[in-house]
Parts: sequence; C-alpha cells; structure tokens
Amino acid sequence: MQDNPILVEVIRGLLVESRHRGAVAVCDAEGMLLLALGDVETPVFPRSAVKAMQAMPLIESGAADAFGLDDIELAIACASHSGDKAHLAAVRGLLAKAGLKEAQLACGVHWPMSERASQELIRAGKSPSAIHNNCSGKHAGMLATAVYRRLDPAGYERPEHAVQEDIRRVLSEICGVPLDRHDMGIDGCSVPTFALPLAALATSFARIGSGKGLTGARKDAAERLVSACVASPTLVAGEGRFDTVAMRGLGTKVFSKGGAEGVHCASLPALGLGIAVKIDDGTKRGAEHVLARLLSELVPGADQVLQSRLDGELRNWLGLKVGRVRPSALLENAAKRLSQQKDSSAASSPR
Amino acid sequence: MQDNPILVEVIRGLLVESRHRGAVAVCDAEGMLLLALGDVETPVFPRSAVKAMQAMPLIESGAADAFGLDDIELAIACASHSGDKAHLAAVRGLLAKAGLKEAQLACGVHWPMSERASQELIRAGKSPSAIHNNCSGKHAGMLATAVYRRLDPAGYERPEHAVQEDIRRVLSEICGVPLDRHDMGIDGCSVPTFALPLAALATSFARIGSGKGLTGARKDAAERLVSACVASPTLVAGEGRFDTVAMRGLGTKVFSKGGAEGVHCASLPALGLGIAVKIDDGTKRGAEHVLARLLSELVPGADQVLQSRLDGELRNWLGLKVGRVRPSALLENAAKRLSQQKDSSAASSPR
Repeated sequence: MQDNPILVEVIRGLLVESRHRGAVAVCDAEGMLLLALGDVETPVFPRSAVKAMQAMPLIESGAADAFGLDDIELAIACASHSGDKAHLAAVRGLLAKAGLKEAQLACGVHWPMSERASQELIRAGKSPSAIHNNCSGKHAGMLATAVYRRLDPAGYERPEHAVQEDIRRVLSEICGVPLDRHDMGIDGCSVPTFALPLAALATSFARIGSGKGLTGARKDAAERLVSACVASPTLVAGEGRFDTVAMRGLGTKVFSKGGAEGVHCASLPALGLGIAVKIDDGTKRGAEHVLARLLSELVPGADQVLQSRLDGELRNWLGLKVGRVRPSALLENAAKRLSQQKDSSAASSPR
Repeated sequence: MQDNPILVEVIRGLLVESRHRGAVAVCDAEGMLLLALGDVETPVFPRSAVKAMQAMPLIESGAADAFGLDDIELAIACASHSGDKAHLAAVRGLLAKAGLKEAQLACGVHWPMSERASQELIRAGKSPSAIHNNCSGKHAGMLATAVYRRLDPAGYERPEHAVQEDIRRVLSEICGVPLDRHDMGIDGCSVPTFALPLAALATSFARIGSGKGLTGARKDAAERLVSACVASPTLVAGEGRFDTVAMRGLGTKVFSKGGAEGVHCASLPALGLGIAVKIDDGTKRGAEHVLARLLSELVPGADQVLQSRLDGELRNWLGLKVGRVRPSALLENAAKRLSQQKDSSAASSPR
C-alpha cells in the first residue's frame, strides 16, 4: 500500500497538533475517477457505510413487500442508529411484521450512542440490550430476509448463511469486484464485512444514488432504500450526527453513510457521483471533515448545512476557542479543482 | 516536519484495517537518544503528560508544605483523574487545606471519565461540575500556589498569571528548551500547554524519574511528586486506565502519564531513562500500544502487567475475536534492539 497523503490537520495555537492521512475517491457510475487522492485501489473494509447494500436482499428477495415494510422500516435497516425511542420503535416494527423477537438479534449489546437514551436507561436502572446496538435495524432486516426465504434464522449473521452469501453477491455485483473469504473481516456486530477499493465503493455509491448502471429489481431496490434513508435522516443516524445533519439539510441531494474506522461514503444522485473516504488511522474526525469539504464544493447549500463542521472550530471545556480542524492544502486544492470540473462538465453537457 | 513512520497496525481479518504513525524518543537524563523513531525534534504539545512538572511550583514555592499537603493531594495535583469518589475527595482535600472553593476552579466541566461515577450522577439526577473535570486536581494545585504566594487567584489559568509563568520556566529548565508564546497553545482545561520536542520530553522524564540532572529543591520536588504518583496509581488516572494499571503493577519501576491527542510519557527511574511518544493522528490507541511495547522490553514484569494491552486483541460486541492491535515491524525491531542495548549497557557498567 502506498503512503496516503495528509488530508486533514488539527491546529492548536500556532501549530499543527495532529494530522489525518487517508484516501478519497469520487467516481461516476461508470467507475470514472473524478478525484483520487491517495490509494483508491487497495481494498478497505467499508464497515457500516454499505448498510444500504447489505439491505438489498431484504427487498430483492420479496421479503420487504411480503411483510409490508414501510419506509421507516427500510431506513432503519440501513441505519447506524443512536438508540433513541424512534429508532427502537422502528426496529421493533420491523421485527413484529416479520414475526421475530428481539432475542433473535445477534448483533451484541452496547450502550445507545444517544446520550439522552443512555441516561434514560440509567435513570430507570436498566441496562442496554441488543435492540440498542446501532446495527439492530440491519440485523432485523437480515433476520426478516431469512425467515421469508424459509431459511433457519439462527446463524443468519455467519458468513456461510445464505443471507450473508446473498449480501456478498450484491456487494460484488454493484461494486464490480469479485469478493471471496480472503477479503472478509468480521464486523463489530458479528456479520461479515468485505474489503473493497475506494474507487469501487465510490462507483457503487454513484450507482445506488442515481440508478445508473443498475437495472430491474436491483435498480428499484436501490431507489427504494436510498429514498427511504433520505426521507428519514434522523433514523439513519441520530440527532447531531453527520449523516442526519447532512441529509436533513440537503434533502434528496445527498445520501450519506458513515462506517467505523474512518470510512464515510456518499451518493450525489443529481450529479450521478459517489464519494468514498477512508482515513488511515480510523478516526471519524478525519473522515467527516474530508466529506464535508467535498460536499461543500459539489452540493448547493452544503456549505450552509455543514457550516459548523467546515469551520472545524475546537472549543475547550470552558468554551474557549483553542484550535481548528481544517483541510490540508492538498485536499483544499483538490476540492476546488473538483468544483471547477463539475461546473465545466455541467456547462458542456447536453440539456 | 518529516514523515513519521507507521508504529502501530490494527488488523481485521487478514488485512491491516487502520494504522497509526508517530514518533518516539527514549533518552537518558543527559539527553542522549537511545531510540528515536520519526521526528523527535519538532515540538509537540505534551498536554496532560507533563502534569507532574506543572505541579512543581506547588512544592518549590513552599505552598505544599505550608498547607501540609500529603501524598494523596500531591498525586491528584499530577492526575488526569476519572472523577471517582476517591479523586473528588483528594481534590476537595487539597482545596480545603488551601482555603479554596470548588467554584474557583477554571477547568470547565465534563462528565467523569469513570462510567460508574457518571452513572451515579445520572441516577442522582445531577450534572457534573468542575470538580469532575479530569484536571481539577492540577487546577487545585495551581490555585493553592497562587494563594500561598498572595497572588490574586482569579485568572490563575491565564498565560500571563505568575503561576503559569512559573510553570513555563520549570518546563523550560527541566526540558532544556527555551519556551515562548509562539510555542503555546491553550489546553482543554484552559491553562497553557507548551510545545516541546519529544527528545526533550523524554529527557525531562529521565530527569524527574531519576533525579539526575536536577539539584536542590527541584530535585526534591520531582522525587516527591513522582513518588506520590507511583504510591497512588489509582489517583493519577483511574480503574482500568493505562497509567493506573502500569504503575499499580510495576511499583516504583515506572512513572507513566498520558496526555490528550496521542501523547504518552514515562520515566524508568532505575534505568535513568525517559520515554516520550506522540501519535500523529492523536489517538490513545496508538500511543498506549507503543508505550506498552517499549515498557515490555525495558521493565522487568511489564510484559505480564500489560499483557492484555500487548496482546491487543480486538473483540466485538458479542465477544468474538475480530482483530488485533500490533506493533509495526519497525517498532517491533526497535523495541528488541533497545532491549539488547539496555542489557549490554547494564552488563558493561561498573557496579
């Protein structure tokens, strides 16, 4: 793997205190790279960024229609949710329609990401359960697919289960990359995660956002899932979180989804583009700043919606301004070039 | 600044999922570099790693003796504490002896690092206050110094206050580096933090741990503070945290202190060495792994005490083993060379 460049700098006083290296690809649905910084060919684990693609078999199998799932339930199947009331209700709704129980969720347990939800549990003297896991909606969707297909739901999270094999096939087809066991890791919630080059990930996000390069049931499934997410941005993440803020403010102009270890992807349906970011060190601080900077050039209104993130102001416990997160000169210049490229291609394209 | 090497790798499945670059210096009290990986000359903010040095004016001014401070109160003045009961009691003890009130603390407010302490506050329907800030002991020590010196305690956290000027002088003298306002940032708790080269930081830790290169009152102050920390490792950090685990298990063999943004330093008094680590991206995951690996070669028993950290096993929410944090080949080889160097210098030194 080649050395990735510094994309984000963290300033304190007059010095760069910390820095984040990484790679980013911006592609169209045909896989043409509009921007490549760093290594966009070595596979990286996309983690939760590809939950919408992991949810496709839920629709393609016919399970979603058979169980009468609505957009709320489809959005939660694609979510890394904060564990607030609305999230739990959506997961429970999905489970109930498919005749499933919370105890069947194999995602493991963590405290809700939502501080408010965690505090409510603590005040009530309760502990979290699997439904509070940010991936519980994805797991509910996988379980629903399994029962609809009359497969044994036990073990649905294992690599050899037909539900996971289906997901591997879907990812492989949309990304245009053969995937085998060597590309597999086990995710925080125990399902497989398959490593994919950033260029392929960006291409897949261009495809699922615009429908270009997809056909038939696959195209319909992508449109339905992305629309469901964009229509319920609070369900896909939670209050104050990047994906919720971005999609709530930008409507159908962006579908954005983060993953663990510094991965973040986005679809820009109107432009037919996809973006995929991976920060080498795995920090969200780096990934979100890169994506915010690129969106601010590519998507009208994103500069306002993501303003506090673009400012990157660091305040301390007393509220004093002590530093700033900022794009590196390389990222800054690349973002500006990308914006010009977009404008000139829009000007020259036939109407 | 030159490119720092990869020191730590994070493995998932068969791939390196994330990586941490950084620099590390191991020095003796004369500033001789026994190990230098990466850039050990460009100044970095040491943040909370130098709290013991920030506490020196508390002793050197005569305030600690005048107020009859004991080792508990000296340890908490050097701490980044978890906000558990014993920590709060120690801070309150220090404040009471100096006739100070909690309301005078200018460190700002955050939830206790201790999950248990946070949950107790929530269950009691309370919010945290400045005393829960991990730096409240340091601030209490600064306030005590100010009142003993009959300085206005208000504004004790500001760069121009005599207490902070004293700290700048102490840091500059022990590290052997002139420091001015250009090297200054404001820390999370609102006091100044002065950027220092890792080589100078490692040298200063060699000095405060062994007393070598220090004389008179400065030497006594260093010995008293380091002894107080090593004698109360739980006060300096908290249950389960690196510094507490290391010092509890290794007694007087190590004085270790972490700071924000991936800084970690340690004194090895018996060897007369100091270590200073900075991870470029600011993550504790990287810094703690580097320090654990070096301590395991240099300090008898550290391999057992820090075993779980050296194993670096990553388990997911269900308890499945999904990956591992491991030293890069460069760090691994450097650690082994360092161990041989130490053994051969011990064998050849006069007894």
